[in-house]
Amino acid sequence: MSPPDRFVFDVFARNCTSRPVMETVAGRWGSLTLAALLEGTHRFNELRRRVDGVSEKMLSQTLHALERDGLVVRSVLSTIPPRVEYSLTDPGRRIALKLQELIELVEGEMPGISAAQEHYDAA
Amino acid sequence: MSPPDRFVFDVFARNCTSRPVMETVAGRWGSLTLAALLEGTHRFNELRRRVDGVSEKMLSQTLHALERDGLVVRSVLSTIPPRVEYSLTDPGRRIALKLQELIELVEGEMPGISAAQEHYDAA
Repeated sequence: MSPPDRFVFDVFARNCTSRPVMETVAGRWGSLTLAALLEGTHRFNELRRRVDGVSEKMLSQTLHALERDGLVVRSVLSTIPPRVEYSLTDPGRRIALKLQELIELVEGEMPGISAAQEHYDAA
Repeated sequence: MSPPDRFVFDVFARNCTSRPVMETVAGRWGSLTLAALLEGTHRFNELRRRVDGVSEKMLSQTLHALERDGLVVRSVLSTIPPRVEYSLTDPGRRIALKLQELIELVEGEMPGISAAQEHYDAA
């Protein structure tokens, strides 16, 4: 009998396949892309505007990685010209909701964090 | 009157000071370092073993950034030789707990994510 899945995956182990997934979803562009898609389906250029500062190349790489992980779905609509839309899958939504909680927590802690930074830099 | 803090900080804005903080805490080594410190105070070499694969340089940089953000405290104990320990502050603990939830969620989603990756790579 195999052990339960929660014992199989461990982000602390350097070769665990969960580690690159964690790096994709929690990384600089992955976290913002997933959180942006919580607001609804987006086209590529809409995402580029929402995820302020991301390059076309980085957004494209991020979306491919999230699509490969089954967290984002890319849909091509048969319009002229074809319209490409990105949306969250169910697991993508679950992870995006947790990231949103993390984002709100970090934003909420920023007054204290800014004060700590000023204190540190003045020392 | 200034607006409430929750309107001041926005990780989606490229110049917001919350963005590098989000990148530190949710990034590759920051997330694992904070989650490891949830288990208790660690010495540098204990952290290096726990955060499997991190280099001395990257762990040192990560700890400095977390210390500057007021999320980790570095204590030097007056033993011979001096002993240096790292632990979480209260805001560090709040963020680490949320990261731990994200880690457990990602680890729990891994069976589906692995299946999606296999499907994607076979296409």
